[in-house]
Amino acid sequence: MADTEALLACAVGERHVLSGGEIPGEYAGDESLAAVRQAPAFLVRPGATGEVADVVRIAAEARLPVTARGSGTGMSGGCVPRPGGIVVSFERMNRVLDVDTVNHVAVVQPGVTLDTLDSETARHGLCYPVRLGEPTASVGGTIATNAGGMHAVRYGVTRHHVLGVEAVLAFGATVRDGGKYVKTSTGYDLTQLLTGSEGTLALVTEATLRLQPRTAHSTSVLAPFTSVDDVFRAVPPLAGGGLQPAALEYVDLLAMAAITDDKSLALGIPESVRQTALGYLLVVLESNSARRLEEDVEAVAEQLLDLGAADVYVLPAGAGRRLVDARERAFWTAKSAGADDIVDVVVPRGELPGLLAEAHAVADATGSLVTGCGHAGDGNVHLSVFQPDPDRRDEVLRRLFRAGLERGGAVSGEHGIGRAKKAYFRQFEQPAKVELMRSVKHAFDPQGVLNPGVLFD
Amino acid sequence: MADTEALLACAVGERHVLSGGEIPGEYAGDESLAAVRQAPAFLVRPGATGEVADVVRIAAEARLPVTARGSGTGMSGGCVPRPGGIVVSFERMNRVLDVDTVNHVAVVQPGVTLDTLDSETARHGLCYPVRLGEPTASVGGTIATNAGGMHAVRYGVTRHHVLGVEAVLAFGATVRDGGKYVKTSTGYDLTQLLTGSEGTLALVTEATLRLQPRTAHSTSVLAPFTSVDDVFRAVPPLAGGGLQPAALEYVDLLAMAAITDDKSLALGIPESVRQTALGYLLVVLESNSARRLEEDVEAVAEQLLDLGAADVYVLPAGAGRRLVDARERAFWTAKSAGADDIVDVVVPRGELPGLLAEAHAVADATGSLVTGCGHAGDGNVHLSVFQPDPDRRDEVLRRLFRAGLERGGAVSGEHGIGRAKKAYFRQFEQPAKVELMRSVKHAFDPQGVLNPGVLFD
Repeated sequence: MADTEALLACAVGERHVLSGGEIPGEYAGDESLAAVRQAPAFLVRPGATGEVADVVRIAAEARLPVTARGSGTGMSGGCVPRPGGIVVSFERMNRVLDVDTVNHVAVVQPGVTLDTLDSETARHGLCYPVRLGEPTASVGGTIATNAGGMHAVRYGVTRHHVLGVEAVLAFGATVRDGGKYVKTSTGYDLTQLLTGSEGTLALVTEATLRLQPRTAHSTSVLAPFTSVDDVFRAVPPLAGGGLQPAALEYVDLLAMAAITDDKSLALGIPESVRQTALGYLLVVLESNSARRLEEDVEAVAEQLLDLGAADVYVLPAGAGRRLVDARERAFWTAKSAGADDIVDVVVPRGELPGLLAEAHAVADATGSLVTGCGHAGDGNVHLSVFQPDPDRRDEVLRRLFRAGLERGGAVSGEHGIGRAKKAYFRQFEQPAKVELMRSVKHAFDPQGVLNPGVLFD
Repeated sequence: MADTEALLACAVGERHVLSGGEIPGEYAGDESLAAVRQAPAFLVRPGATGEVADVVRIAAEARLPVTARGSGTGMSGGCVPRPGGIVVSFERMNRVLDVDTVNHVAVVQPGVTLDTLDSETARHGLCYPVRLGEPTASVGGTIATNAGGMHAVRYGVTRHHVLGVEAVLAFGATVRDGGKYVKTSTGYDLTQLLTGSEGTLALVTEATLRLQPRTAHSTSVLAPFTSVDDVFRAVPPLAGGGLQPAALEYVDLLAMAAITDDKSLALGIPESVRQTALGYLLVVLESNSARRLEEDVEAVAEQLLDLGAADVYVLPAGAGRRLVDARERAFWTAKSAGADDIVDVVVPRGELPGLLAEAHAVADATGSLVTGCGHAGDGNVHLSVFQPDPDRRDEVLRRLFRAGLERGGAVSGEHGIGRAKKAYFRQFEQPAKVELMRSVKHAFDPQGVLNPGVLFD
């Protein structure tokens, strides 16, 4: 134990190794409501790839579990360490190394946060279009979970923007894969395999990210509906039509109540409309041309009315931005309202009415409250489950996952499996598939050094 | 041998098994100029997933190599069978099973061709935007190589459109992964891992593909340049700007000569301009609005002139389409001109001038002809190598790959490694990475039944 500490200190410098009681409590977990927190034996903060490789070699030698950590904003306990284990925090490897304006990519260290990346790219008229509810999330963390967020309906998820990685393998070797290009057919795509692998296959130490030109103009349109079914029936034509909304979000009454509690946020919706609304769609449109944006807003407003919206409100720029921000904070709203768990099952977007109907039936049958909110355009509505009894909550969750998978969906759309959902992952995903994933894990990490207990037992 | 044939006949029906001399010559290879053709012992044509699974089980039992085959239009020998092996041809599994207009996806069998998929989706106002030079390519084949094509600069490559697969594993088990959604974070992404794996990990028996709304209007703009360097310097600002061309192609003089040999294709370029042009850029723009398209064409024409184009020609609809088609047939042009090999090394698009300069230097030094043509917007210009002497050709190829990798590129942008390029793959890619890929291969296929000799020896 003392030996390990000395070796780690040698690798990253004494002041970047903490052990036992010196380690701040935040390193015991993430934002998951369900995962049990666990303090690690060591916290190390490497400053460079070579140091990460040294730490992994020391850990492999001593058979100590290694858990990579970005900002700790994950939702599934993916960075909860193991007893006796080492947390490798990337907080010092937090630089944007290159904003390449010729090839339109950024090269970053894993600890850089999305908001830092956003301001660094903004200076060049570029942007990284993965936008999450939590802008302090680290790029490394978003790669680990293949984070999606609000703009996925137009721009895709993290994996569509990660063009290459440098990563440290379980034995301490460092590999580079991919680069500043989109097209490649040169063996298995390790970049894509590592994206979404939740720190169980390798530690990403650098990433090459695809950037987009920053869009000049943006408008938010809010549409109240008097039927929740109508909200979801409106989603496929809006998402799949030619207008390509940058966001297409379902705002439920709980989220809307929290949002409108903020008296400074004037949405201009009359009280009478709010009284009868049972759900809202928020549509964000973007364009480089103010005139084209205006035309598109008009077209989408017409489409919304055709699809049954009670009315359509084009939000003033400030209010629109803040409503989007508030919608993105829905997790915190649910948490402070006392939600016991939040699941992010994904289904084909056309299956949302059925999924939500089932969620309500489950809630009724178990005396629970289940509310949905989120990325309707992607079939990825987050369900907040209010049910304090663990057994009944487990029943609710199982029924929700079963409902999702019966409709052609998957356990998690963007939060990952982590520790919190692995029992459901094992129960509901096809056994042959889970076994295949285990064999991939074994190929990368035969000793089980990297994030053991995440995804698999 | 006879036993195997009887078992195969049992699995797929007697008339769908051919052996030895009964097997037509085309099944011995693909369009690769470099791969050595090889007749298989058996050709089987399964009609359903269960039959594929049976065939793989029979092969695994008898330790016979299995090579999956779509339309045989690959460029790297990825479907060249092994002596004594079984070719599984998907020509009978060639149906579009579902065009889902709610979720905007198609579910297809692997043997369906891109042109069939295009006409089936067109009826619903949708399209699958992966467009290759060879429209008779099968979807299964394009998944095997992660095919890119002409529209990748705007729409991405095959992996960005494959949302899910059904696949038969090396032991005959069938797994399903992904589905009619874009977002997922539910364990390792097997769909992405199989995409680009060239039949070495599993046999894809069904795919769920993301569709786009079909764009109503399209215009092709052709710009001659009097300097090849200027052509390539113009690429990054055109590709990364806000106009999002659907194609951004470099047309070299050889391709242009072949194209304009077709007297019926009037491009409207005066002889005097053609005399001084050393290269052309072809820019395709698309929009749902005729007015917006016109504006964009004007903007791109201005941009091209600013970037040094000698002039700009907006092509008449018919001529534009046919020029694009002709550009896509560049491979056949090069082949009929006597090219000895074609490589598709990919580099960051800003590195194209350096790569092409090196290609010319290599050509001069070895007395070869090396001409480039293709997907400039993606840094993926295909280089035709005219050098009949195998040793000197090998030297040319090594120097081209080295030049690409030194510039941050990869061996293949879209054709794959197959059999033709595995020596270069092994020489130029990082050994630790190739070893890791081998361990993934071993995890999927420990007996080496699936397409042995492709990617690895």
